[in-house]
Amino acid sequence: MTLQDLKLNEFNSTRILHDDLLKQVSAILRGVNVPEEHADITSKILVSASLRGVDTHGVGNAVRYSIAIEKGEYTIPQSIEIISETDTTSLLSCGNGLGFVAAYKGMEMSISKAKDFGVGMATIKDGHHIGMVAYYPMMALTHDMIGLAMTNASPSVRPALGARPRIGTNPIAFAAPAGEQRDFILDMATSTVASGKIGLAKRLGVKIPEGWAVTAEGEPLTEPLGDRGEHWAMNPLGNTREQGSHKGYGLGLVVDILCGVLSGGGYGTQLSAGENMSFMMAIDIAKFRNVDDFKSMMDDMISEMHATPSISSEERVLVAGDPEADIQEDRLKNGVPVENNQYDELRDRASNLGVEIFI
Amino acid sequence: MTLQDLKLNEFNSTRILHDDLLKQVSAILRGVNVPEEHADITSKILVSASLRGVDTHGVGNAVRYSIAIEKGEYTIPQSIEIISETDTTSLLSCGNGLGFVAAYKGMEMSISKAKDFGVGMATIKDGHHIGMVAYYPMMALTHDMIGLAMTNASPSVRPALGARPRIGTNPIAFAAPAGEQRDFILDMATSTVASGKIGLAKRLGVKIPEGWAVTAEGEPLTEPLGDRGEHWAMNPLGNTREQGSHKGYGLGLVVDILCGVLSGGGYGTQLSAGENMSFMMAIDIAKFRNVDDFKSMMDDMISEMHATPSISSEERVLVAGDPEADIQEDRLKNGVPVENNQYDELRDRASNLGVEIFI
Repeated sequence: MTLQDLKLNEFNSTRILHDDLLKQVSAILRGVNVPEEHADITSKILVSASLRGVDTHGVGNAVRYSIAIEKGEYTIPQSIEIISETDTTSLLSCGNGLGFVAAYKGMEMSISKAKDFGVGMATIKDGHHIGMVAYYPMMALTHDMIGLAMTNASPSVRPALGARPRIGTNPIAFAAPAGEQRDFILDMATSTVASGKIGLAKRLGVKIPEGWAVTAEGEPLTEPLGDRGEHWAMNPLGNTREQGSHKGYGLGLVVDILCGVLSGGGYGTQLSAGENMSFMMAIDIAKFRNVDDFKSMMDDMISEMHATPSISSEERVLVAGDPEADIQEDRLKNGVPVENNQYDELRDRASNLGVEIFI
Repeated sequence: MTLQDLKLNEFNSTRILHDDLLKQVSAILRGVNVPEEHADITSKILVSASLRGVDTHGVGNAVRYSIAIEKGEYTIPQSIEIISETDTTSLLSCGNGLGFVAAYKGMEMSISKAKDFGVGMATIKDGHHIGMVAYYPMMALTHDMIGLAMTNASPSVRPALGARPRIGTNPIAFAAPAGEQRDFILDMATSTVASGKIGLAKRLGVKIPEGWAVTAEGEPLTEPLGDRGEHWAMNPLGNTREQGSHKGYGLGLVVDILCGVLSGGGYGTQLSAGENMSFMMAIDIAKFRNVDDFKSMMDDMISEMHATPSISSEERVLVAGDPEADIQEDRLKNGVPVENNQYDELRDRASNLGVEIFI
């Protein structure tokens, strides 16, 4: 099996309409006492990930969150507290509840502040997983704004030259609206790959390429390990000093600073698995220049990229967001392929919680 | 010769006190009619690069700028125009003058807006080189602020999968203040290496490592080329798809969007060599939380990184800004080593312009 096979196997999955998934995920969350508004927000973000083909962050996770909530790992219902606030900034507490909800509220507040003052930003402490990070900057697009979001995590990635994990995969997502072209939507871990890819390789029993991870001696690790620990680490983007590992490492710390240090919620090594602090920002384009002119220049830039000759005879040059937009187009029409074991888990969970089954 | 040799050769250089360099560079710029205030700003930024060991962006460039000004490639004296402005945002025109001056003013405005409203940002069109990008976020540090700066450029880097240069090296710089530890100062091209490193390898006649550049067929290029053109391209950070080239490429476009599209000044392929649009941002930490607490957490995080076991027996784990701070400490005390040919050029240029010689 090769890297290209690290995708959802359509033969072992069932296509389900996203509206039904929205209802099912929300019902499961409400089944563990998540208030309706919060359940709907979380469901919307999980289904968006599934629609965009980001299956590692998709609806399958609803079961896991509902179990964590039942175990008392989350405070439900959560109360999102504004710890400090100005016209353009806010420091929020997620209240040890669903990270999705606080990140969503943080971006809503940032958009509202940007509408009034040009820019809005929020940093969020006491948080958990926020799912597919791209969701939040995408919220800015419909307001003709540029969006930025980041989230930190417990250590899995080594610093440049380091032999132990000290930083999370700390993703950065950025979105800017285009006109005729598809919007620019970047969502990238600051490690070589997202940790979900290594988990998926482990689950599928396939090797990972050199450059993704190393042993505690700094030797390339190609047999994916499922655990976390001091005996292996993922590589920062760039991998080696010669190829720029200090850049991926540096960006990882930028994420820790804006999410963890600015909020006071904590940086990598201060976090337990499942703890995540976040940062949201919105910029109102109209405060700088005419929005249509901005979008038209975005279109030109994107077209220019698409027209670049490719080094591959089989694949053309893409722009961030293209692959996900293609997948979403298909899945909106034909339903989201849900792996059969996840499909069963979702139905079983709903059944055990005594909530309605929609899928 | 190896990669490690791609540094200034101290044996072919003369140590000059930075105060004398400040005077000399400013005098040369005033010699081509740059107003005193603008000459002093530009000199301060060039000397700062030299002090920090970023010699590719240091004082040696003063001669080149002064010649470009004499040739009429810059409008001198420049007028920096505020095209649009709100409480937190500004769109500036650099007036086809020195990029340094507009970027400096843009960061000053951003700091002032952040002091009043929490955040300030500026995007700058009609610009040129801004030198060492780290200088601008460093301006925010003394105000207990976080700083961010970016600048775009004419194409030298290929998109992921692309076989032609379509994006500049588009650097990102970010600074955040620490307490007892040294400040966090990241300054990174979104390509594998800064273009100056390839230029330096060409000048020194040494090969570059695979992964830095490719031919138009996508084959690794190890003989550095001095020209720009469609027959070779630098690689985005990540290099290959498997190792995350879409991330370096994506970040490069983020820089083009915030500097070029938001300002209207233009993205990569719309720019000629020497044209550069820029973006500046400042965030006031005190608007979120107690500044001393922030700095103390920065200290802890930086100490944690320094304490990480290294995969190298010879080198320890560093944090962004460490190498430059070490060099600056030496150079502030013992003077800046200026390559002898650059030393001669600076003196000759001063002499030809009939301005005082300080070095």
